[in-house]
Amino acid sequence: MKKLHSKFKCLPLTALITALPGLAMAGDGATGASAMYVVNNTWMLIATFLVFIMHLGFAGLEAGLTRSKNTVNILFKNTAIIAIGLLTYAIVGFNLMYPGDFSLSGFFGFAGFGIGVAPENMVVAGDDGIGIYTYWTDFIFQAMFAATAATIVSGAVAERIKLNSFLIFSTIYVAIIYPWVGSWKWGGGWLDAKGFYDFAGSTLVHSVGGWAALAGVMVLGPRLGKYVSGGIKPIMGHSMPLAAIGVFLLWLGWFGFNGGSVLSADPALVSFVFVTTSLAAAAGIIGSMLLSWFIQRKPDLTMALNGSLAGLVGITAGADVVSVTSAIIIGLMAGMLVVVSVMAIDRARLDDPVGALSVHLICGIWGTLAVGIFSPDHSFMIQLLGVVVYAIPCFISAFVIFLALKATIGIRVDEEEEIMGLDMGEHGMEAYADFEVRHTL
Amino acid sequence: MKKLHSKFKCLPLTALITALPGLAMAGDGATGASAMYVVNNTWMLIATFLVFIMHLGFAGLEAGLTRSKNTVNILFKNTAIIAIGLLTYAIVGFNLMYPGDFSLSGFFGFAGFGIGVAPENMVVAGDDGIGIYTYWTDFIFQAMFAATAATIVSGAVAERIKLNSFLIFSTIYVAIIYPWVGSWKWGGGWLDAKGFYDFAGSTLVHSVGGWAALAGVMVLGPRLGKYVSGGIKPIMGHSMPLAAIGVFLLWLGWFGFNGGSVLSADPALVSFVFVTTSLAAAAGIIGSMLLSWFIQRKPDLTMALNGSLAGLVGITAGADVVSVTSAIIIGLMAGMLVVVSVMAIDRARLDDPVGALSVHLICGIWGTLAVGIFSPDHSFMIQLLGVVVYAIPCFISAFVIFLALKATIGIRVDEEEEIMGLDMGEHGMEAYADFEVRHTL
Amino acid sequence: MKKLHSKFKCLPLTALITALPGLAMAGDGATGASAMYVVNNTWMLIATFLVFIMHLGFAGLEAGLTRSKNTVNILFKNTAIIAIGLLTYAIVGFNLMYPGDFSLSGFFGFAGFGIGVAPENMVVAGDDGIGIYTYWTDFIFQAMFAATAATIVSGAVAERIKLNSFLIFSTIYVAIIYPWVGSWKWGGGWLDAKGFYDFAGSTLVHSVGGWAALAGVMVLGPRLGKYVSGGIKPIMGHSMPLAAIGVFLLWLGWFGFNGGSVLSADPALVSFVFVTTSLAAAAGIIGSMLLSWFIQRKPDLTMALNGSLAGLVGITAGADVVSVTSAIIIGLMAGMLVVVSVMAIDRARLDDPVGALSVHLICGIWGTLAVGIFSPDHSFMIQLLGVVVYAIPCFISAFVIFLALKATIGIRVDEEEEIMGLDMGEHGMEAYADFEVRHTL
Repeated sequence: MKKLHSKFKCLPLTALITALPGLAMAGDGATGASAMYVVNNTWMLIATFLVFIMHLGFAGLEAGLTRSKNTVNILFKNTAIIAIGLLTYAIVGFNLMYPGDFSLSGFFGFAGFGIGVAPENMVVAGDDGIGIYTYWTDFIFQAMFAATAATIVSGAVAERIKLNSFLIFSTIYVAIIYPWVGSWKWGGGWLDAKGFYDFAGSTLVHSVGGWAALAGVMVLGPRLGKYVSGGIKPIMGHSMPLAAIGVFLLWLGWFGFNGGSVLSADPALVSFVFVTTSLAAAAGIIGSMLLSWFIQRKPDLTMALNGSLAGLVGITAGADVVSVTSAIIIGLMAGMLVVVSVMAIDRARLDDPVGALSVHLICGIWGTLAVGIFSPDHSFMIQLLGVVVYAIPCFISAFVIFLALKATIGIRVDEEEEIMGLDMGEHGMEAYADFEVRHTL
Repeated sequence: MKKLHSKFKCLPLTALITALPGLAMAGDGATGASAMYVVNNTWMLIATFLVFIMHLGFAGLEAGLTRSKNTVNILFKNTAIIAIGLLTYAIVGFNLMYPGDFSLSGFFGFAGFGIGVAPENMVVAGDDGIGIYTYWTDFIFQAMFAATAATIVSGAVAERIKLNSFLIFSTIYVAIIYPWVGSWKWGGGWLDAKGFYDFAGSTLVHSVGGWAALAGVMVLGPRLGKYVSGGIKPIMGHSMPLAAIGVFLLWLGWFGFNGGSVLSADPALVSFVFVTTSLAAAAGIIGSMLLSWFIQRKPDLTMALNGSLAGLVGITAGADVVSVTSAIIIGLMAGMLVVVSVMAIDRARLDDPVGALSVHLICGIWGTLAVGIFSPDHSFMIQLLGVVVYAIPCFISAFVIFLALKATIGIRVDEEEEIMGLDMGEHGMEAYADFEVRHTL
Repeated sequence: MKKLHSKFKCLPLTALITALPGLAMAGDGATGASAMYVVNNTWMLIATFLVFIMHLGFAGLEAGLTRSKNTVNILFKNTAIIAIGLLTYAIVGFNLMYPGDFSLSGFFGFAGFGIGVAPENMVVAGDDGIGIYTYWTDFIFQAMFAATAATIVSGAVAERIKLNSFLIFSTIYVAIIYPWVGSWKWGGGWLDAKGFYDFAGSTLVHSVGGWAALAGVMVLGPRLGKYVSGGIKPIMGHSMPLAAIGVFLLWLGWFGFNGGSVLSADPALVSFVFVTTSLAAAAGIIGSMLLSWFIQRKPDLTMALNGSLAGLVGITAGADVVSVTSAIIIGLMAGMLVVVSVMAIDRARLDDPVGALSVHLICGIWGTLAVGIFSPDHSFMIQLLGVVVYAIPCFISAFVIFLALKATIGIRVDEEEEIMGLDMGEHGMEAYADFEVRHTL
């Protein structure tokens, strides 16, 4: 359940303080309701900084699973993305995703540029009039989410995309596409009215990022030397500790990603979401570990790491509405799915250096459909409708933007630069200046 | 003080909402008691994600202090352990550690397989009937603890243990031994009745892990080339930044490990525990830094890092019951103890690559005894009894399991693989594919 | 707004429990006010562990931006600093910074050695008598701040300072200078009375550290080979991932650094501070990225990373009193300023390996002045006065201490050791024992 402005009353803070019993901050007037408001708001801010740390998680994972000659480039992209994501969300994204009123019957709405102009003193309150969190909390929590969608793309197109093209793509995607399609569900738009369910974003964040990643991979083509003379050449990541740091920080961030999506500190719901999220991640590791061990005859670390992410993406759509046992099954299936998917996507000659398509797109779809399978209150067909309905605009818009960039400024670095690495080519800088590095093609 | 089911009333949530003044979530019915319940529960969930991050801390520390040829193996073990720990704790551990009723007079009890079947809607409440946290919070906080015990073993047996044997050992130890002996104290069993005190687990977590580590080290024997022709050869860790990241994240996690063991957001207790924990860690650094500087004539980074962990392990048993000055003394002593212990254990030809025995076992014992020394309300003899009583079953059970594994599938990789490194041997993968690495024996 | 003892009533906890409506912890007596107290205290403890993690952030940033031959030394310094900072703050710093009564009319005061002797049971309460947090929370939050000032120096003097001299300097600076000058504003001293404003420490932490860093750089002189035959030789950092991890963790910590400086969980203020802090950091990235891209014709990762820190330092003085738009402008300017400043300081032959002077001193000054520019309630001239008034004692005292150390035990390692690296020279240990490392001069 993401915030729906339509479901909450937004009142000026000053009005609330006098009108409602619970919003005076302290003093004799401090009531149970006002304390409840403060703890709800505090939890949402904690969730905000947890989602923030996912950006470091993505940076570590992507850098670790690619070659050292492209590390500066990946770190630069991830640093730029969080800046672009936060600022564009302040300028257009937030008011596009939560327009309040739709101008096109649940399909499009826009509440104007900038934040904090009119609603500066507002408190988002529940149906009962009790404050849950401030307008600013609402904005910053959602803003942290927005940037993650673009980051997902970053990993899939790594090691060959031109930096400026990637930044332009990301800016458009995170500023317009992500919030626009997000409004259909979390903004209270037409898909929300249909009963589609996506608790914390298996589809709205992970698949939305995943479809763009797929478009990027298709338009860009594979890295040099990846698919040669009929064979598939594995290109090893350069730092497994960095990848592991990334994955553990992503998991940490997920406590806020899913736990914060309760949109209050409700003890029963938040703690239940912690349990389903953690057990799905654990089951994802077991699933991918065992299946890849069985298939490859070796326990594969990158599969185990991606297995935890697969479980996390898988449980994200239904973390609050499926049982603990279902959460374990969803995670286990996601973990196995990611192994099969990584192999299948590689065979389809879609070159995804970090497995982003498998983790975010495939497991995002799986998680969304799983709500229809494991939760008696939700319809599989509606969930499937949601998957399709997000696939079309996301994939098409991303494909068109990437094609347009290709036709104009170009999206791929030249062959010489790709061999030398983007760090020297784009940035004139090495990630590990003191180390003897083997530059694999 | 860890949660004792015997000390709390567990009531169905629905009953509580009507029966108690404080459990309605919001609305006109939001009272001070209900807000208190929400903040208590929120703090316990924060403590949960802090303990989670300790698993990344352990992974970083262990990987950093060992050789690069075994890094993938260590990261894999730590990724698998958190998955195994969480899932087995859900299946058997939680109900073994907190059985409610003991079937064998405070010595053994088991509340059945799985979680959430009967007590799904329960809230753990204090003596006064005010809710503290949900059943789910209770489970997930304790589950995060459980996996840490097995992780302690991982470091001590690193660089030579067979992966499958380690995983089998860990599964048994974390699923059965850790929760079974834990029930004696935290589950309200016979040692709790004796007045034994272990606030957050100097013994119940760190020594329990440490005894198993000792058994593992003894059954495995030292790494090749460690003790040759009468001399002790230092084997250097491959990444000090990784080790430092690990230690700082462990310290971060300890704010939840100790702070969460208050089992509520009680301002006086939690803040006091933050102070004693931090000052003990700081004093541990000073103690180990000065003593190792004095002995070795060089300021030793690994000693300083282990000194902070020594202080943290040392204060864990009594963080809420000793004075600030005592906390500093306990930390200082722990820091010095770890230096002496690392040297003594090495001389005893017990090969512990990361100093886990010194940090977790020796300082765990020290911290447990220190409660009897520095807290007037606790008996040194009872604390000593606790140390002995945990030593016996933990060491023996671990020793027997390791011996059984040795006799069947084997526990040690062959000599060729140990020289080549477990990364290529067990996983067919390098941690740092792009770097020129010197393979020291 | 940092805690002013003069603004809060400090009452014994027992008195408060009976006298005030809100301080009973639970039971039928749990009121809105008591729950409010618990959530305020909990938020301050969360802010505490966030500020703690900044120490890992600094360690990563400094180590990443310097050469691999000095990595152990940097990690050692950062580990020692947190220990020294916490312990000296407990012994003298806290009572020097918050003396309660000044013995020298707002200029100097000291409440005695040690913590917790008299005020053991105290709760810091607001004007209305409602408890905000405990004495212990107050101490540990402020203690985490104290150590950061010394850490700022560490980066600027890296790769050439003698370890023991640095530790002696840091001990004096963090134990005496930082808390003494801090008392002028946050302790309720004479500058506070003048109306000077520094919300979370652009001046009191960052410039205070920055002035000492400047003194250190001047007394030490540049690294060997940095300024040769009229030219400036860039000396590259050895690990960009480590630097990026450092910067993201610093940003994470800033949610507590600024968010905790609200000194309560006030929803409107804390959430607003999250927004201004995040957007200033984002704008800082954009500012430094674009300007350095324009000047150098290459997108520079270290500039982008330092840009985010510049934005964060810049917004720190006024995060709660400037508008969102102003926060973006302040961050953008800070990001551009850091680029210009890094180049200017290098041209002035002040060798600052990590850009600490530009980030902490220059942007600290900028942020402090920006309050006078962008907040209608504050005076530019008073802010300028504050900048000057902190510059003088900090720079002079640091300069004198460094000179005294130079004249006695020496502050610079000898040439041979500098070339070999401080890791082998001071610690007899390599940071990356397994890797082939190129030792650049």
